[in-house]
Amino acid sequence: MYYKSKINVGIVGGTGYTGSELLRLLIAHPQVEIKAITSRTEAGMHVAHVFPNLINNNALDLTFVAPTDNVFDNCDIVFFATPHGVAMEQADTLLKKEIRIIDLAADFRLQDTHVFAEWYKMEHTCPHILKQAVYGLPEINRDKIKDARVIGLPGCYPTAVQLGLAPVLRAGLVDGLSLIADCKSGISGAGRKAEVNHLMAEANDSFKAYAVDKGHRHQPEIQQGLCDIAKHKDIHIDFIPHLVPMIRGIHATIYARILPEAQNANFQSLYENFYIAEPFVHVLPQGSHPQTRHVKGSNNMHIAVHRRNNLLIILVVEDNLVKGAAGQGVQCLNIMCNLNETMGLEHIALVP
Amino acid sequence: MYYKSKINVGIVGGTGYTGSELLRLLIAHPQVEIKAITSRTEAGMHVAHVFPNLINNNALDLTFVAPTDNVFDNCDIVFFATPHGVAMEQADTLLKKEIRIIDLAADFRLQDTHVFAEWYKMEHTCPHILKQAVYGLPEINRDKIKDARVIGLPGCYPTAVQLGLAPVLRAGLVDGLSLIADCKSGISGAGRKAEVNHLMAEANDSFKAYAVDKGHRHQPEIQQGLCDIAKHKDIHIDFIPHLVPMIRGIHATIYARILPEAQNANFQSLYENFYIAEPFVHVLPQGSHPQTRHVKGSNNMHIAVHRRNNLLIILVVEDNLVKGAAGQGVQCLNIMCNLNETMGLEHIALVP
Amino acid sequence: MYYKSKINVGIVGGTGYTGSELLRLLIAHPQVEIKAITSRTEAGMHVAHVFPNLINNNALDLTFVAPTDNVFDNCDIVFFATPHGVAMEQADTLLKKEIRIIDLAADFRLQDTHVFAEWYKMEHTCPHILKQAVYGLPEINRDKIKDARVIGLPGCYPTAVQLGLAPVLRAGLVDGLSLIADCKSGISGAGRKAEVNHLMAEANDSFKAYAVDKGHRHQPEIQQGLCDIAKHKDIHIDFIPHLVPMIRGIHATIYARILPEAQNANFQSLYENFYIAEPFVHVLPQGSHPQTRHVKGSNNMHIAVHRRNNLLIILVVEDNLVKGAAGQGVQCLNIMCNLNETMGLEHIALVP
Amino acid sequence: MYYKSKINVGIVGGTGYTGSELLRLLIAHPQVEIKAITSRTEAGMHVAHVFPNLINNNALDLTFVAPTDNVFDNCDIVFFATPHGVAMEQADTLLKKEIRIIDLAADFRLQDTHVFAEWYKMEHTCPHILKQAVYGLPEINRDKIKDARVIGLPGCYPTAVQLGLAPVLRAGLVDGLSLIADCKSGISGAGRKAEVNHLMAEANDSFKAYAVDKGHRHQPEIQQGLCDIAKHKDIHIDFIPHLVPMIRGIHATIYARILPEAQNANFQSLYENFYIAEPFVHVLPQGSHPQTRHVKGSNNMHIAVHRRNNLLIILVVEDNLVKGAAGQGVQCLNIMCNLNETMGLEHIALVP
Repeated sequence: MYYKSKINVGIVGGTGYTGSELLRLLIAHPQVEIKAITSRTEAGMHVAHVFPNLINNNALDLTFVAPTDNVFDNCDIVFFATPHGVAMEQADTLLKKEIRIIDLAADFRLQDTHVFAEWYKMEHTCPHILKQAVYGLPEINRDKIKDARVIGLPGCYPTAVQLGLAPVLRAGLVDGLSLIADCKSGISGAGRKAEVNHLMAEANDSFKAYAVDKGHRHQPEIQQGLCDIAKHKDIHIDFIPHLVPMIRGIHATIYARILPEAQNANFQSLYENFYIAEPFVHVLPQGSHPQTRHVKGSNNMHIAVHRRNNLLIILVVEDNLVKGAAGQGVQCLNIMCNLNETMGLEHIALVP
Repeated sequence: MYYKSKINVGIVGGTGYTGSELLRLLIAHPQVEIKAITSRTEAGMHVAHVFPNLINNNALDLTFVAPTDNVFDNCDIVFFATPHGVAMEQADTLLKKEIRIIDLAADFRLQDTHVFAEWYKMEHTCPHILKQAVYGLPEINRDKIKDARVIGLPGCYPTAVQLGLAPVLRAGLVDGLSLIADCKSGISGAGRKAEVNHLMAEANDSFKAYAVDKGHRHQPEIQQGLCDIAKHKDIHIDFIPHLVPMIRGIHATIYARILPEAQNANFQSLYENFYIAEPFVHVLPQGSHPQTRHVKGSNNMHIAVHRRNNLLIILVVEDNLVKGAAGQGVQCLNIMCNLNETMGLEHIALVP
Repeated sequence: MYYKSKINVGIVGGTGYTGSELLRLLIAHPQVEIKAITSRTEAGMHVAHVFPNLINNNALDLTFVAPTDNVFDNCDIVFFATPHGVAMEQADTLLKKEIRIIDLAADFRLQDTHVFAEWYKMEHTCPHILKQAVYGLPEINRDKIKDARVIGLPGCYPTAVQLGLAPVLRAGLVDGLSLIADCKSGISGAGRKAEVNHLMAEANDSFKAYAVDKGHRHQPEIQQGLCDIAKHKDIHIDFIPHLVPMIRGIHATIYARILPEAQNANFQSLYENFYIAEPFVHVLPQGSHPQTRHVKGSNNMHIAVHRRNNLLIILVVEDNLVKGAAGQGVQCLNIMCNLNETMGLEHIALVP
Repeated sequence: MYYKSKINVGIVGGTGYTGSELLRLLIAHPQVEIKAITSRTEAGMHVAHVFPNLINNNALDLTFVAPTDNVFDNCDIVFFATPHGVAMEQADTLLKKEIRIIDLAADFRLQDTHVFAEWYKMEHTCPHILKQAVYGLPEINRDKIKDARVIGLPGCYPTAVQLGLAPVLRAGLVDGLSLIADCKSGISGAGRKAEVNHLMAEANDSFKAYAVDKGHRHQPEIQQGLCDIAKHKDIHIDFIPHLVPMIRGIHATIYARILPEAQNANFQSLYENFYIAEPFVHVLPQGSHPQTRHVKGSNNMHIAVHRRNNLLIILVVEDNLVKGAAGQGVQCLNIMCNLNETMGLEHIALVP
């Protein structure tokens, strides 16, 4: 599937943080043309009115439109940056028009529809489409992504935890049943919804864990992903999310017990080799401490591997809105369209 | 009016930031007993459930109650920490029961009911009570506060601007018609309301002015207060508020043109003498730059006076929730009840 | 040992964050009089000049003095808020004058002088005094603290981790050899030293782990404390600290594997009963998520206990400068002087 | 002067914030090749070791070198991102080799060497070079920049204040003698120097003015720039800087009195027309409040114009490290090299 001219792209629901991040990335993408962006609440409004960071004197002339039936008809790919449940409803119509789908929500992540229903409190309405959906984690599923018609893009936490554990799980060097992922996220992960808990006066200058009582929706997704990576060996991970008083960024601190037979493994080399060809995943030198600010605004992931006796401590950082969402979506688009995988994703993190 | 035993206090609407700050101060006040605190939404809930900073193993046994008719019957003083308009409705009933009122909202601040209606978009329903209300700025109105039955507590910005200008306006040393107050506030000033604009991901790591187009409700209040202070000479001030990415604190930068006849005045001495007996207003040494953190959590105000040729630059800081709201309310209570004015207000600012 | 009149207190090195926090607490303590505070760099300077939050119009008249020989002669207790190594040098002289010592640094924490030398890169110069030193964790060592002549005050992280684990280690319900403490601290824990890493432009809006490569000095202290609590059973814990972009606060997320024989234990009750009589340690209701802001500026610790199958997840928050340092020091002073343990420590956390 | 192939660029002193920002911009610039970057302290170190945001798997192979004599010999342009005084020393040597200079420090900003000496506490050592230096504010000096051999790049505050006032000063519509610029800057403006005042625990969650007593070095530069813009009419401005607890961004609130004869002017149109052809300066719609976050990481400036009676209130935001420093430098480079002025500067601000 080659694209000689520009890729025509549509966005459903562009007024949240992943939607506006998609805009930031796609507007600057040399091979993409945004054909339509829909929003019920902002229809008729210029995108730069809602997101003044998009103001410029150049050509950008993009206005939110209402989500009518044919709005995406001349698109090659449509992104869903919507709440869970929206992509499920519209997928069939789009696919019939030969439009490929990249869903940033959870509709096409979990293959088990019972698990989906349990965690997302809604029935899955198109299990037949779900079956052909590809989990959009390029470092693991690159080949399948190439020809995918529907991509279920990984959640922000699952991206960090899976790529943090992939090398040792594939190599079978750690106990897969006692994994712990102590994860920390900036507040943009909570979305652009008016909630008292996420007011600056409530969330800044403080730190807390959350969802420890009922579990977080990313738990089953991480579980599923790690099983796939480990070739369906038995895996159990406890995933505990925390809220950091910062805007962007995820830091995963992952604990894994080294198996007795793996005590002599060189984990630094293992990680470096595993990711040697990856354009976005960077294994830092021995002894490093990755910082979320060093990937802020970029599609990069930094990983450091530490060891204490039989405990492996893996530190992973990413920008939750880029490698953890919109950037990974664009990476998938590039793969799906036979473009250079880094095209439009070469941003250097904004430091300081 | 002497109080031998404890002062019985009621609070209407204790679930916002000024309400919770009143709780913090009054719970620790040695001469106050909180008899009732009302909230429609949280009725039946222990205050420490809503505000876990109030958890302790001691005696605190305070539960939100619904705002029924007789709930404050044995109170000496009732605070209103409510939206504008609530105190107006209930004032008459309370006053008839000989209960004194301290309103933290705007119902009893503006003496001109037309101005009130214009800025607050509601008619004033008890102008007869408004007439007897005292503007609760102790440094200016201490004597009237003593015997007041109704206190209209100043807004946070007006407290800073009026006390910043009082010495020079009283002395008639600056041009009263070209005053500018460039003010900056932390986000708790916006209240505990779920609004997208005040989400941490929107408000942190950024700075903006606001209400420059339509004006801010504190503009007429400042105007009225300065006229009173200047003994009804003609005064015009332009007040421009800004939002600072911090939780608490107000910083006012006030610009005043020194009158030709006042070029030889010693402004540092003037300010020091004006506030020499004040327990909460501290004039910093010549050349100082007050910082909001140095008054965070305390009822203190720090003022510095700078001069450049004929321009006087007055820097004022306060905690908007303490000296700018709840603390000033307690200060008024102390005055009204013949207590030591600093009682329950001796907190040292939390640094760092 | 009774004190009828005021306790005379001295402070060595009052210009760091623990020193200034001691000042905040002790100035307001009803039974304490600060007799002298030393600083080489600030000698001659009024404390309010260095810490403008201490400005008031009242009596506070406290000036830094140079650390000469007899400066503390009429003190009952001297606090060291100094770098490691200073208290060791001066302890003998003070003790001979019957002055009791509370050291906020590490000189009297580790009983094994080899371990001390290894982690703090200096020889211990008074092992004979170390032997009689008491580890100042009141909830564990209250009786010994009463008569102690020298207190080695726990570090901030060790306070959180030990009190978080004490109930289950005492009861022997978890595997003591696979403990993990994933801890997060605000930046005031790094002290008031000019370092590029701790500039606001480097540390804000970011998150990182640190000292994972070489280990953190609190590791051996936690290890020692947990062994004592567990009555010298074999204990191994991995302690991983992280830096949170906030000023105050520690959040410990502690992972412990429940022993097979303890699967039916009621951990919520266990924790509630263990701390039922403690004035500062509060076990939150089942399902809670403690937030550091709810203890900011107070001596409180909040603990929540969660369980997932055989994994116990204990969440602990404290203010690193209060319960993690100065406040715990004052708590020890109260115990040592037969005062009410909460005296001068009744601050309600500053929220928001 | 045309450049067919890549522009060869050198950077002196690349370890501060303006240096690292130059790297971020120039590495991604399609027509620039960085030939050498010097640093005494980091010589021999890969740039990505010092700034891990520059890590990638691609070609970037850039190492700090010691500042030896011939290191820039094959450069077309050399940037100085150094402390004041360094560019002065090296300018002559470079110019003799036909290398053009863009100085981000103050050496070539102030044409009056007495004023320079007074504010920067050093003699100017090359007044003959200063005379030919061009002040690098493209919107005002574009033509001169084209052929400049030495650019003195404006300070961050002066860029905001001059562009904020240019339209009304050129048109002669406001009183030039009573201008006030109340400016607010994020902390990256203070540079990457280890100072206690700029520690996160000192600077976050607080707000203060600074340099009000002695004046700020940008005062004479603003003064000079405004006189030039106003065609040497008499101008007096009072510039008052403040520190905002954020990392990047400047917000200028500028107050100007409208002249009696200009009362009927349409200021919104005036501003829109003045900047209509500018690629980076955007006049927001009537009634807007620019936010610093909307230009974070971009070279854009947003301006809003408000009016209250005879007071004009101009709100200006920019990123102090981009349009206020490195970005403006690249904009000058583009002009000097006949490149498209926006080349390498098309970054969309990072929101949220």
